[in-house]
Amino acid sequence: MTVATKPVIVLVRPQLGQNIGKAARAMLNFGLTEMRLVAPRDGWPNPDAGPSASGADVVLERAQLFDTIEEAIADCSHVYASTVRRRDLVMPVVGPAEMADRIAASHERSAILFGPERSGLETEDVALAKAIVTVPINPEFGSLNLAQAVILLAYEWSKHGTLAQPTAKELEPAAPHGEIEGMIAQLNGELDAKGYFHPPSRTQATKNTLRTIFTKTGWSSREVKAMRGIIRALVGPAREH
Amino acid sequence: MTVATKPVIVLVRPQLGQNIGKAARAMLNFGLTEMRLVAPRDGWPNPDAGPSASGADVVLERAQLFDTIEEAIADCSHVYASTVRRRDLVMPVVGPAEMADRIAASHERSAILFGPERSGLETEDVALAKAIVTVPINPEFGSLNLAQAVILLAYEWSKHGTLAQPTAKELEPAAPHGEIEGMIAQLNGELDAKGYFHPPSRTQATKNTLRTIFTKTGWSSREVKAMRGIIRALVGPAREH
Repeated sequence: MTVATKPVIVLVRPQLGQNIGKAARAMLNFGLTEMRLVAPRDGWPNPDAGPSASGADVVLERAQLFDTIEEAIADCSHVYASTVRRRDLVMPVVGPAEMADRIAASHERSAILFGPERSGLETEDVALAKAIVTVPINPEFGSLNLAQAVILLAYEWSKHGTLAQPTAKELEPAAPHGEIEGMIAQLNGELDAKGYFHPPSRTQATKNTLRTIFTKTGWSSREVKAMRGIIRALVGPAREH
Repeated sequence: MTVATKPVIVLVRPQLGQNIGKAARAMLNFGLTEMRLVAPRDGWPNPDAGPSASGADVVLERAQLFDTIEEAIADCSHVYASTVRRRDLVMPVVGPAEMADRIAASHERSAILFGPERSGLETEDVALAKAIVTVPINPEFGSLNLAQAVILLAYEWSKHGTLAQPTAKELEPAAPHGEIEGMIAQLNGELDAKGYFHPPSRTQATKNTLRTIFTKTGWSSREVKAMRGIIRALVGPAREH
């Protein structure tokens, strides 16, 4: 993962400083740091941006200001236009995961364009891109705001980065089967003493059921020990403390 | 894709009505409609929720109110706790995509727990879940708000929306969480009578461990019943036959 493959986030004519801040926060959560602003409505810097960034000030401080999209993407080889509306343009349309795959596979700089909050990108803006990226949303309720669109695309991109996906590493390994058997033998012994296995014709079937129940738990050695302690406690006398 | 596989979104002690509305909007963008609220700080309904939902009123109108997490997830077989902090619990940790895969592959009802805005889920809350789901974020800047966490998980789930083909049914479905809780309550009661929970300072931690051990089993209703019979047998007098 080289820095060059981190996409540049280009906000085109953003309206509210607050939303620029929220977009910065969304970006930094997933390791994106390069924001470019094209003709923000209220100028730049904007005092409303900082408080909404929740600490992602580094993104805002480094944000670059441009008059036009063409200037903002001049050094970018691959440009994606984020949009939900259908267009009259003949252009590839990709989903977030495919866009992320393409960006990660590329060795050139990529950019993702996001339009103004209210109206989104104009057709002329989209025409500057190589492909449209669309987040598939509920056809009966599509209401993604700017920062949400940014965070979903940044999140997909991050899967290719150094933010390791959690694996089941915190899961303790399952105990060796012998430990499970030992616990089952203890349990069977105690249950036998209580007259649990009755009638004798059903004893083996009941024991098979118990073995299945406890074998499927996936308990670790520690958990098997805990269960053995529970069995001892249940059959033992009440302890005074 | 049956309705049963759509996860229930459980907001645990949410603070601001505004954030409940934003969460509803995030959900509906990706087709999730079932929200449950556990002890919202400012009561329910909350007049601040509607304006933030941006039209996702149907989610708010159908939201169900509960006093405890246990009640809110009583009919859910698979419960995921969304959290970023590391825990002292030994529990599987999965990423959003893996959680979505598991939910989509399951035929029982699933729930995802989200904690209060400021503090997130408490360890006792997390102990009620089968697994932790964590969005991998920038280790140097982790600042996902409630609605963002909801939207990322809802987005991942939505990728399975077109997978219409049914998967192989498990032999027996996992029991609803309420049944597991009933068994745990029975066991805790018996262990308490035996003086098992000692010293008092360790009682909650021990109970959390027990909850994790039994929640992770994936036991069916039949198996939970068998375990309850075992507990009764162990603490009862020896039966003569």
